[in-house]
Amino acid sequence: MNVNIVQQYSQRLRNNKAFELFVIAIIVLSALLIGAKTYHLPDYAISALKIMDWLVTFIFLFEIVVRFIADEDKMRFFTKGWNIFDTFIVVVSLIPIEDSELALIGRLIRIFRVMRMVSFVPELRLLLNSLLRALPQLGYVVLLMFIIFYIYAAIGSSFFAPINPTLWGDISIAMLTLFRVMTFEDWTDVMYEVMEIHSFGWIYFLSFIFLTTFAFLNMVIGIVVNVLEDEHAKERAVQDKLDGKLTIEDLSQQISELKQLIANK
Amino acid sequence: MNVNIVQQYSQRLRNNKAFELFVIAIIVLSALLIGAKTYHLPDYAISALKIMDWLVTFIFLFEIVVRFIADEDKMRFFTKGWNIFDTFIVVVSLIPIEDSELALIGRLIRIFRVMRMVSFVPELRLLLNSLLRALPQLGYVVLLMFIIFYIYAAIGSSFFAPINPTLWGDISIAMLTLFRVMTFEDWTDVMYEVMEIHSFGWIYFLSFIFLTTFAFLNMVIGIVVNVLEDEHAKERAVQDKLDGKLTIEDLSQQISELKQLIANK
Amino acid sequence: MNVNIVQQYSQRLRNNKAFELFVIAIIVLSALLIGAKTYHLPDYAISALKIMDWLVTFIFLFEIVVRFIADEDKMRFFTKGWNIFDTFIVVVSLIPIEDSELALIGRLIRIFRVMRMVSFVPELRLLLNSLLRALPQLGYVVLLMFIIFYIYAAIGSSFFAPINPTLWGDISIAMLTLFRVMTFEDWTDVMYEVMEIHSFGWIYFLSFIFLTTFAFLNMVIGIVVNVLEDEHAKERAVQDKLDGKLTIEDLSQQISELKQLIANK
Amino acid sequence: MNVNIVQQYSQRLRNNKAFELFVIAIIVLSALLIGAKTYHLPDYAISALKIMDWLVTFIFLFEIVVRFIADEDKMRFFTKGWNIFDTFIVVVSLIPIEDSELALIGRLIRIFRVMRMVSFVPELRLLLNSLLRALPQLGYVVLLMFIIFYIYAAIGSSFFAPINPTLWGDISIAMLTLFRVMTFEDWTDVMYEVMEIHSFGWIYFLSFIFLTTFAFLNMVIGIVVNVLEDEHAKERAVQDKLDGKLTIEDLSQQISELKQLIANK
Repeated sequence: MNVNIVQQYSQRLRNNKAFELFVIAIIVLSALLIGAKTYHLPDYAISALKIMDWLVTFIFLFEIVVRFIADEDKMRFFTKGWNIFDTFIVVVSLIPIEDSELALIGRLIRIFRVMRMVSFVPELRLLLNSLLRALPQLGYVVLLMFIIFYIYAAIGSSFFAPINPTLWGDISIAMLTLFRVMTFEDWTDVMYEVMEIHSFGWIYFLSFIFLTTFAFLNMVIGIVVNVLEDEHAKERAVQDKLDGKLTIEDLSQQISELKQLIANK
Repeated sequence: MNVNIVQQYSQRLRNNKAFELFVIAIIVLSALLIGAKTYHLPDYAISALKIMDWLVTFIFLFEIVVRFIADEDKMRFFTKGWNIFDTFIVVVSLIPIEDSELALIGRLIRIFRVMRMVSFVPELRLLLNSLLRALPQLGYVVLLMFIIFYIYAAIGSSFFAPINPTLWGDISIAMLTLFRVMTFEDWTDVMYEVMEIHSFGWIYFLSFIFLTTFAFLNMVIGIVVNVLEDEHAKERAVQDKLDGKLTIEDLSQQISELKQLIANK
Repeated sequence: MNVNIVQQYSQRLRNNKAFELFVIAIIVLSALLIGAKTYHLPDYAISALKIMDWLVTFIFLFEIVVRFIADEDKMRFFTKGWNIFDTFIVVVSLIPIEDSELALIGRLIRIFRVMRMVSFVPELRLLLNSLLRALPQLGYVVLLMFIIFYIYAAIGSSFFAPINPTLWGDISIAMLTLFRVMTFEDWTDVMYEVMEIHSFGWIYFLSFIFLTTFAFLNMVIGIVVNVLEDEHAKERAVQDKLDGKLTIEDLSQQISELKQLIANK
Repeated sequence: MNVNIVQQYSQRLRNNKAFELFVIAIIVLSALLIGAKTYHLPDYAISALKIMDWLVTFIFLFEIVVRFIADEDKMRFFTKGWNIFDTFIVVVSLIPIEDSELALIGRLIRIFRVMRMVSFVPELRLLLNSLLRALPQLGYVVLLMFIIFYIYAAIGSSFFAPINPTLWGDISIAMLTLFRVMTFEDWTDVMYEVMEIHSFGWIYFLSFIFLTTFAFLNMVIGIVVNVLEDEHAKERAVQDKLDGKLTIEDLSQQISELKQLIANK
């Protein structure tokens, strides 16, 4: 019975608009704390930041506990990705780390607390989900692009490695160099260096740029077409509602009834 | 009675096409004056520029006074953003500033007089308004992008600050550096420097580039879809007008009347 | 009578497919000649090029004379832009220039003969025309962008000229520098230099990049929407033809007639 | 009879899902072998790689023989591009090359075995085909762009060759330089160098950038419109099926029959 009352209070608190805004404010505060730590600060400010950091951690802990208690179906609470993410971030923040190696991970975890903004604001969560959902549809284009990169990197590291090992030393370095070429970042320096030995090196670079640009364009257009189709589908659904259920078939039916009526007269 | 006649004259002047073209010519002149001032000029030319500058200021003042007098509803004149902008620009131009500190502001104000072109040509005003109106619709994508920037800047300034303080010193400098990476401006120099210490630094840079490029693409597609939807809505409205008011429902109604007629016979 | 026969022969030659292909081959040859001249060649090759150059010029002259004679309405021949362009190019090629100053113009004219490819192949002419037709529709966006450039260049040359006169010396140099910033070409070098004196210089550069990128995006979307609308209009026209002339109004008319018929019985 | 049984076994093997996955795994393995070879490896690893390389070659040979035997119409087997590609790659891999000159070609052939992934996965083959099919539709835009490049390269190599022969030496080098300018890679360095001699050199570079950017945009939009039109056509086909065969014409027909019926009464 007592438990039920706690759950009810938790639900009321969870659904409270003011509490929600308070948690968002705390998330923003935690983001500002992380930013502030990157500046050179006097000792007392560092102490103040530490205290606020613990405060933020405990409010986050409290908020997750409230959400967990408020949940109707506790079994399924940890099947939702964002809940696992939130709990993990908070629990790791609670562990006091002194070791310098692990301290880095502690700092990283604190930085990822900013991601809680995404988990908390439904619009952002929706946006991220839609971004992630768009990715697999592009799976084969990404695979094709990877194959192009792999082939060019294999050629590059086989033939240009003696020219400049820091750019073409092995296939993984060559792929990084090719990504650089794709972003047009000082790509002519890379090409001119190759062309001093292999005078037809420009064919390698220009064909790579054409292929990847063209594949990238297709990827973009793929996204646009997908998005527009979704929009059209929605639009058509709205249109159908507006039109009511009357179609040309209905009219035809009505006229047939008329015929029957006249014929029977 | 006298006031009314002044108002009528003002309205006639305001709506005069020639007066409009004259004001546009004066705005163009004021833009040319600003441009001319950036060249090294002989003394007599500088004096000439000063006189023309005052002339432009007084014509602007006259034009605003005319528009104010011509306005039917003087209360609402200053509720329109462009009127406030115009008046502010002209009034500040009138203040004679000798102080070198304030002189800079005076020069800045004179430069912003070119913006009067936007306030005066309705097509440009419309265009700017539509640009500004598109912004808030993209609000959440911009927020998501800011969060991505903030997290990466926090990681960057935490881990790479000892490598190069001028690029990663604190979170705000790191955000500027990341913006630079996003524009592909010498981003490999930044990456290679980091990779000398952290050999897996390329994961940081490549994941950042993929995330921001992807988010940016979505922003662009968001604008395109919005614009196209507006266009479709307009088109459908035009189509509906062409179709008249007759719909399948109207036909159905007519056939029902027919049935009634036949049944009553 | 004699003149008529010449005109008929000219028309037959002009419309001859083989003659057309021959002229295209000559245009390609003239392009290759221009390309060949940029290499270091032995003396006999230069002489050969000169002879072929004269040959090309005379074939071009012959082709234009044929087209002029073949034209039904000689008055309107020179009202078409491409005819004027072709004639001008050929006539100037005929003038023997020895003077080194004018020789440059002669070379330039010979280069522009490659443009005859565009004037001769109808598909290319159509494409260029459609590109040119798209420009004025974007007039106001281009004007807005020019105003943005002008204001930023005025601010830049007023405040940053002492920092680096070769980049910000006067308003025209500043506009070129801003165009460079817009293409992201070493823009951070320009910004860091300014930020050493004005630490808030990044606001100037980032706001400029955001504004111009946004305006450019809108320009692109403007073109896309225009093109798609044209396509839709075409599609609708095709659809209307398929649908025949029957509309819901026609049906309504028919049903009204039915009513009349029944009522009159 | 015996031959028929072999063919049946081959077909069963070819259509076997597990065999297909096995071949894909072997292709991935061959890709990994190529990547591994670019690293510095101990001698025993190199020997292991060689053995695996032969293994891959023989499995590929076996797979193609199976596919050839399984094919119903052996005459048409080698009319399909991908079959020729696969056979060529495998046959050349079989030739033992010791000569260092030819060894390079052997390595190149081994790299192209990664392309077998494209030939084997139908989705990738489809994607590549659709990319290739999009190219000729853009033929005239590509031709126009080539003409723009050629004219600017001719002007550049005629006038700027004395300034910097490594950038403007002859027309082919000038075209490479212009491609570099088009990708905005250190294009200002190229321009500033020219502007020291020809102070109006910026007109050459800016007009080139505007023309090529505009033409490139049109190419992209061309692809988008083509893709969208295909999508619309598909959509309309689906819509037509949903609508059944009833059109306004059918209704009109029905009403006419009604009229007849009433008139005959």
